[in-house]
Amino acid sequence: MIFFRSDYSSGAHPRILEALSKTNYEHSDGYFMDAHCFHAIELLKKKIGRDDVDIHLTVGGTITNLTAICAFLRPHQAAVSAASGHICMHETGSVEATGHKIIHLPSTDGKVRPEQIDETVIFHEDEHMVQPKLLYISQPTEIGTIYKKAELAALKAKCEEHGMYLYIDGARLATALTCDECDVTLSDMAKYSDAFYIGGTKNAFLFGEALVIVNPALKEDFRFIIKQRGGMFAKGRLIGIQFEEMFKDELYFEIGRGSNEKAAKLREGIKAAGYKFMVDSPTNQIFPIFPEEMVQRLEKDFFFYRWAAPKDGMTPIRLVTSWVTTDEDIKAFLDAIK
Amino acid sequence: MIFFRSDYSSGAHPRILEALSKTNYEHSDGYFMDAHCFHAIELLKKKIGRDDVDIHLTVGGTITNLTAICAFLRPHQAAVSAASGHICMHETGSVEATGHKIIHLPSTDGKVRPEQIDETVIFHEDEHMVQPKLLYISQPTEIGTIYKKAELAALKAKCEEHGMYLYIDGARLATALTCDECDVTLSDMAKYSDAFYIGGTKNAFLFGEALVIVNPALKEDFRFIIKQRGGMFAKGRLIGIQFEEMFKDELYFEIGRGSNEKAAKLREGIKAAGYKFMVDSPTNQIFPIFPEEMVQRLEKDFFFYRWAAPKDGMTPIRLVTSWVTTDEDIKAFLDAIK
Amino acid sequence: MIFFRSDYSSGAHPRILEALSKTNYEHSDGYFMDAHCFHAIELLKKKIGRDDVDIHLTVGGTITNLTAICAFLRPHQAAVSAASGHICMHETGSVEATGHKIIHLPSTDGKVRPEQIDETVIFHEDEHMVQPKLLYISQPTEIGTIYKKAELAALKAKCEEHGMYLYIDGARLATALTCDECDVTLSDMAKYSDAFYIGGTKNAFLFGEALVIVNPALKEDFRFIIKQRGGMFAKGRLIGIQFEEMFKDELYFEIGRGSNEKAAKLREGIKAAGYKFMVDSPTNQIFPIFPEEMVQRLEKDFFFYRWAAPKDGMTPIRLVTSWVTTDEDIKAFLDAIK
Amino acid sequence: MIFFRSDYSSGAHPRILEALSKTNYEHSDGYFMDAHCFHAIELLKKKIGRDDVDIHLTVGGTITNLTAICAFLRPHQAAVSAASGHICMHETGSVEATGHKIIHLPSTDGKVRPEQIDETVIFHEDEHMVQPKLLYISQPTEIGTIYKKAELAALKAKCEEHGMYLYIDGARLATALTCDECDVTLSDMAKYSDAFYIGGTKNAFLFGEALVIVNPALKEDFRFIIKQRGGMFAKGRLIGIQFEEMFKDELYFEIGRGSNEKAAKLREGIKAAGYKFMVDSPTNQIFPIFPEEMVQRLEKDFFFYRWAAPKDGMTPIRLVTSWVTTDEDIKAFLDAIK
Repeated sequence: MIFFRSDYSSGAHPRILEALSKTNYEHSDGYFMDAHCFHAIELLKKKIGRDDVDIHLTVGGTITNLTAICAFLRPHQAAVSAASGHICMHETGSVEATGHKIIHLPSTDGKVRPEQIDETVIFHEDEHMVQPKLLYISQPTEIGTIYKKAELAALKAKCEEHGMYLYIDGARLATALTCDECDVTLSDMAKYSDAFYIGGTKNAFLFGEALVIVNPALKEDFRFIIKQRGGMFAKGRLIGIQFEEMFKDELYFEIGRGSNEKAAKLREGIKAAGYKFMVDSPTNQIFPIFPEEMVQRLEKDFFFYRWAAPKDGMTPIRLVTSWVTTDEDIKAFLDAIK
Repeated sequence: MIFFRSDYSSGAHPRILEALSKTNYEHSDGYFMDAHCFHAIELLKKKIGRDDVDIHLTVGGTITNLTAICAFLRPHQAAVSAASGHICMHETGSVEATGHKIIHLPSTDGKVRPEQIDETVIFHEDEHMVQPKLLYISQPTEIGTIYKKAELAALKAKCEEHGMYLYIDGARLATALTCDECDVTLSDMAKYSDAFYIGGTKNAFLFGEALVIVNPALKEDFRFIIKQRGGMFAKGRLIGIQFEEMFKDELYFEIGRGSNEKAAKLREGIKAAGYKFMVDSPTNQIFPIFPEEMVQRLEKDFFFYRWAAPKDGMTPIRLVTSWVTTDEDIKAFLDAIK
Repeated sequence: MIFFRSDYSSGAHPRILEALSKTNYEHSDGYFMDAHCFHAIELLKKKIGRDDVDIHLTVGGTITNLTAICAFLRPHQAAVSAASGHICMHETGSVEATGHKIIHLPSTDGKVRPEQIDETVIFHEDEHMVQPKLLYISQPTEIGTIYKKAELAALKAKCEEHGMYLYIDGARLATALTCDECDVTLSDMAKYSDAFYIGGTKNAFLFGEALVIVNPALKEDFRFIIKQRGGMFAKGRLIGIQFEEMFKDELYFEIGRGSNEKAAKLREGIKAAGYKFMVDSPTNQIFPIFPEEMVQRLEKDFFFYRWAAPKDGMTPIRLVTSWVTTDEDIKAFLDAIK
Repeated sequence: MIFFRSDYSSGAHPRILEALSKTNYEHSDGYFMDAHCFHAIELLKKKIGRDDVDIHLTVGGTITNLTAICAFLRPHQAAVSAASGHICMHETGSVEATGHKIIHLPSTDGKVRPEQIDETVIFHEDEHMVQPKLLYISQPTEIGTIYKKAELAALKAKCEEHGMYLYIDGARLATALTCDECDVTLSDMAKYSDAFYIGGTKNAFLFGEALVIVNPALKEDFRFIIKQRGGMFAKGRLIGIQFEEMFKDELYFEIGRGSNEKAAKLREGIKAAGYKFMVDSPTNQIFPIFPEEMVQRLEKDFFFYRWAAPKDGMTPIRLVTSWVTTDEDIKAFLDAIK
């Protein structure tokens, strides 16, 4: 069985395992209060190009999202997201479980547009309705599309106009920042958001993310909320060591770029074979549409998600590449659809 | 600096790192739905001696406690705990953040007694008060003492009498089950509880715990709650692999026993030097009381917790041993207090 | 200024005030544990024709909805509602504040259809998504339309098929049950729901609602949740006395019927004057569409809601009638639109 | 049966009923946005002597407490209260249900002392514990004792020293401010608190309280939270009309004073008969200790609370007087204990 199921189906980059082995017998204090975490955070600040942000290492995507959102909002305030957003669809109501409504916006390409923010704010007119306060987007989006710099800038400006925060989920940030279409840098992420996270799990870490809080109003007492929500990892340094290793040079970005290149090959091959895509996504998730019969046949040798039910005999599927995807995997798939 | 600060100050047992390396390039599905997790759970069921329990792998102690307690209780129901319990004191109100009060019971040795349950139930007489529904204890307790089999049986019987659940936090379970005083087995843990967890983080795992749900009424839909609270680890197999390695033979228990032996040496040496202890704890946490001046001197070379403020010039401290504590560490400490 | 703003713009039916005066100096126990509340509940059970339901008197609509929903659901379970439903739109995220997501369904006439339940259940396929567990509808709907008996029966059957509860908000139940189109009785409300409430505030009470819990699985410990959410009214008998008065004969229904008759006159007059309606609603809320200029002129003498922004120069407004609406009010309005 | 059970066992002062009758047919907008509410708030501000406070009318005590506390605190922040406080003991975990822990302080007379605040702040040392942020007290306390001006000032100063809010539950405020021992005025309540509420229900209203927010940092968006928690009363004017009537002259205070006078007579008579009290309370709740046999005899003719279980054959009970307590009631009781 060849896996195009996800970018978290295997372990970690070998340098990660080496770094963990090398530091295994060191003693250090827990809960991210150790030299490796401090150093990782310094490295991240340098890559971002700013010293005035707070960075917190975290265990995974869902817990980062729910911790950040519940820390940033007062009880009557709501998050706003594309209906396809991860917090809307695939986190089992984790944000609502902290007491906050998510306002769902329609979107065909996974992106939110500035005028939707206006409409949302106008619609929520008084205290009988929740107050839209935080825009959640992801970079790349749930379906692999990306926001360009001008789009981020426009969303940030719109949020500021309405006194809203812009929070960006970067579970697959490495692939966004390194894809050909993208003109956004890590610095831009900080410039055009109030907070965002740099995803590790899906980019060859064993696990771990880094939440960057840019807006000073959102920084206070954040470690309390991490602990309260269960994210205060005892051996916190394990995440610090991984970020150190990934950001001491360009490894983080190389891995993202590699995943994109694998996806590009797959995309080109599928296009050449005459198939269409549900959406035009430039990162490591692609969504070809195949005849249902072919999908059933492919399922015997390949492991992937069906993205939606068949329609007129055609079924969109999701293929995800990662640092462990091989040229042989790609060749096998392209052969199979010929 | 010699660490008696905690049992999570270094990495993992070498067999853990080897197992992660060996499996690194395997592909598998996420979220604990892989062969390693399934196998780990089978091994755990065998050690427990029961096939009728549900086992869920989890990321850490606090998130296990809050997930279990909020899954098991209805909104008006409360947890009951010794005031010194971890959920009362060191989890930043994580249980209350899920909506549930914790009723704090006084305790000098960290343990709850059956008659306290009676008193609590009688006191909470009607719907103007919360309903005590779940007794939380830990084995060993927050201060290293243990419940013997008869004590567990008595608490379980008392809980059943009042329609309450007994939930046991086993963050340091390995040291409890292997200490000389203890007549409780892993099977007994299931026999005398409705749910309990087997702690990994503090027993030479990188991280990871295993929640065992015994009471069928508490099993339904538990994976939804894990996901909702942020504990649905993407690369779930990492925890499965660690439990596999620890429970394929007796490694888990050997490590616990080793930690206890180190603590015993330290304890004997301190006793021999003429010092007293805050509590008589048979596991890997000990609480000697030293003159404040000596504590200040010790702090230069040793890293440990002060457990309480000085009183009449004497200060209780906590010393924790683990699988990485060496005979040299112990000798150095005993020399220092001479 | 003539009020068509709402059906809660004045005090109470004179018989309510008389009953409160007459009983003012009686002494009784608090929190709904008095003879008037017990008697009111007996009267309600008789009108419903069932003795096996639990009835709880409550203070207002929003607190009834949030108390019921949070009592009925486990943390990962969601309510399902038409997007126009009151809990979605006009209760400031009160359900989400108890931790539960509401799944919004599109609807043009305010009603949910059985096939939407199927689609919702299919879409929410696994533990990464919330579990749809409770269907919320209101009778009449937020825009004055009603469910006929066959429609309720079909929704209830569909809910049972999927293990879901059907909960009905009856804030304006009196007008639904007494409108010409409606073939639903109070008995049917219990037959085709797991719980529903009988609204008082909008039907000439000072305030107060009565929650009827039909499904035995939802009854346990409900008074705890009422108290916890702040609805355990100290002088509970005030609500009991009002329900006694309204249900000791047919007053409750007469008031509902009267409100509908006033709305019918208004509706006929507006129709006769050549105007259209946003929706065809047979109860005491009607939604005529007028030229924006006319709306601005009407606002000088009449107080009502604009229901939506003008479109192509035409604006839908909401007119609500009640037991205090007079024939003169109606004549004045109809004169004004000529 | 003669009632000393509570001060909410009968209806309302006749002037309240008259005012409701007189205004019954007025039309007004809902949700406290009407002329009566505005006028009531103006009257309250005048009595307080300050125009810079925000006042919100509310439905009852528990919902006021939970709404205020959840509006004022961030998720990791805790309320601090005497263990005997109403929010600790008799509100079914309503504060915890909004996500916040309450730290319980021991107290024999129902009062909190400034040094307890210091101890609490020192004890909660880091982010593994909740952050004590709001001190909850009630005036009078749960057992009828009062804070004098100097005590309030000292608590407020201590709260300011630690960046904490002081919130005062005034469910029975009328009796506190009018008792002989008390040197605190309504102005002082605002001066020495960040927020407090003026209780109506227990002082001859049908129902209703008024929350006064003094600290500007706590004012923003408060109406959203009222609505979200279910307290946005549709016919809000009903509460406005009651406060208007009570505060247009000295009626509110006269009723409080009257209740105290009745309690004083009862107290003197019981003292004269040779009995002791559990606590020395100068307001309308008194706690005599009688032989258990006598308590059983009294229960045949009088309705009151047993405050605690018998001890050495003696049982403390609670007697509460109110505006409807008569001299005959008192004489009957004093005769009965002779």
